[in-house]
Amino acid sequence: MTVTDRDPYVAFRDELVAAGLLLPTDAEGIYGRSGTFERVVAGVDALAARLGETDGAAHRCFPPVEPRTVFERTGYLRSFPDLTGAVVTFVGDDRAHARLLATADAGDDWCHHLTPAGVVLCPAVCHQLYPTMAGTVPDDGALFHLQGWCFRHEPSPDPARMQAFRMHEIVTAGTPEQAVAFRDRWVDRGLDVLRSLGLEVEAVVANDPFFGRVGQMLAANQREEALKYELVAEVADATKPTAIFSANYHQDHFGAPFGITTPDGAVAHSACVGFGLERITLALFRRHGLDLDRWPAELRARLAP
Amino acid sequence: MTVTDRDPYVAFRDELVAAGLLLPTDAEGIYGRSGTFERVVAGVDALAARLGETDGAAHRCFPPVEPRTVFERTGYLRSFPDLTGAVVTFVGDDRAHARLLATADAGDDWCHHLTPAGVVLCPAVCHQLYPTMAGTVPDDGALFHLQGWCFRHEPSPDPARMQAFRMHEIVTAGTPEQAVAFRDRWVDRGLDVLRSLGLEVEAVVANDPFFGRVGQMLAANQREEALKYELVAEVADATKPTAIFSANYHQDHFGAPFGITTPDGAVAHSACVGFGLERITLALFRRHGLDLDRWPAELRARLAP
Repeated sequence: MTVTDRDPYVAFRDELVAAGLLLPTDAEGIYGRSGTFERVVAGVDALAARLGETDGAAHRCFPPVEPRTVFERTGYLRSFPDLTGAVVTFVGDDRAHARLLATADAGDDWCHHLTPAGVVLCPAVCHQLYPTMAGTVPDDGALFHLQGWCFRHEPSPDPARMQAFRMHEIVTAGTPEQAVAFRDRWVDRGLDVLRSLGLEVEAVVANDPFFGRVGQMLAANQREEALKYELVAEVADATKPTAIFSANYHQDHFGAPFGITTPDGAVAHSACVGFGLERITLALFRRHGLDLDRWPAELRARLAP
Repeated sequence: MTVTDRDPYVAFRDELVAAGLLLPTDAEGIYGRSGTFERVVAGVDALAARLGETDGAAHRCFPPVEPRTVFERTGYLRSFPDLTGAVVTFVGDDRAHARLLATADAGDDWCHHLTPAGVVLCPAVCHQLYPTMAGTVPDDGALFHLQGWCFRHEPSPDPARMQAFRMHEIVTAGTPEQAVAFRDRWVDRGLDVLRSLGLEVEAVVANDPFFGRVGQMLAANQREEALKYELVAEVADATKPTAIFSANYHQDHFGAPFGITTPDGAVAHSACVGFGLERITLALFRRHGLDLDRWPAELRARLAP
């Protein structure tokens, strides 16, 4: 990395853009990706998929929008309203359309002409899985892996804090003991996998960015109970490592509202691990340089999809 | 297909759901996909990518949301307001959050508490490519291929009319002659590729679903000038084939607002072809049956990613 006295996030973003790996847009945190960037993303994604398949996880895929009803049941609006992306659409006639266009042509906000579309941008890939798991899980727990796009409204110059990004998750539901054991096993496994890519990572207890005053208590509680671990690595700022992987124990947060139960009739507990595909890709470019052709041959072979 | 007197769309959807290929949700046109469904999607996607790469197209990837500024410049709000998905988010404080939750807890629409987020769901994968092409294209035209999610607000029981779906597009910009030649070549090529998968397809002149009274004229004009061709195949209804691939000549619709020019300084014309990944997958399940293991071995080999 070039030494610079500029904000390290802006400096790294500018380097990625200059190298043609990310294509900037008018909206902060929304980027195009080059074919080279996508080759690495595909490699990391395939690695996560193979780990899931090896464990017998069933593969699922969900779109980047989820039904409003699912979104509401996850409690996301209570905990992370500021990150939410709800979808509105136009349902009027020709005359209402003329008014909509007049507003847009005047350069004003035209969203107030619109009506809820019944869907919300998916903030976490596993959300849409839970309604499909309603009912009783097998004795040894349910196990799925899935990749998809997440949206979180947090415009930032940090290239690792994108508004739209992909996660590959592996998700389980079962007894509390099964969920905790899954989470703990994956902290170690995540460290092994990411270190095998040449990354310097460590595990830290973490919290989600809960909103507002109540959120501060929720975050403190989450840390106190050590529900969430993140694996952090250097991305833009050598002094402040970035979470590139997380392992989360949800207790009954999803099992209860979505009616998931264990064979003995108790509410199922769930846990998930998420490979942050863009963040791992960025950490790899930071660690091994922006020229993919000069990465170690062994690493490139490992990331061949 | 089972012979049934029910609406053929609902009947085919129910068969796909019973076979576990699609997972229904509370929102019409929003589905989870099984691992088997995704294997076929990945195979078709890889086929489209190989065709693009063989022609020397550069690979790009864009997220499922695009900047509002890009959306506005495409003219989509004028032509397809009813299909639009604009994104709104919460920017208030603790007290405003309490009001938001009170509305949601009462089961009322809570979107009016929200504010435009500066992004819109991407309705066409090539939208976000055009701003990156601003400037002069090479003598033989610019050529890209890209896959991504599209959103169109048109809830429907037809499994082929999803609200969220993926397209793999190949896009060119150059002189009018180059753009037309690309589009025409791809009509023939699309027929060859899809027939090689065992599908019975034919090419038809088509129009986009322009909105309202003005839209009727735009649609008639588009058909009259034969700007859009669709390749149609049987999906749910044997009597009404479904578009699974399109080849479109845009004239200067994108070149003008995004400042794309040819080497002689004229506004570039563009054309794109789109492989509808879910629709081709559905056509294949319709044609070859819902049990992937019983598809012809040669076809399965061709669709191995």
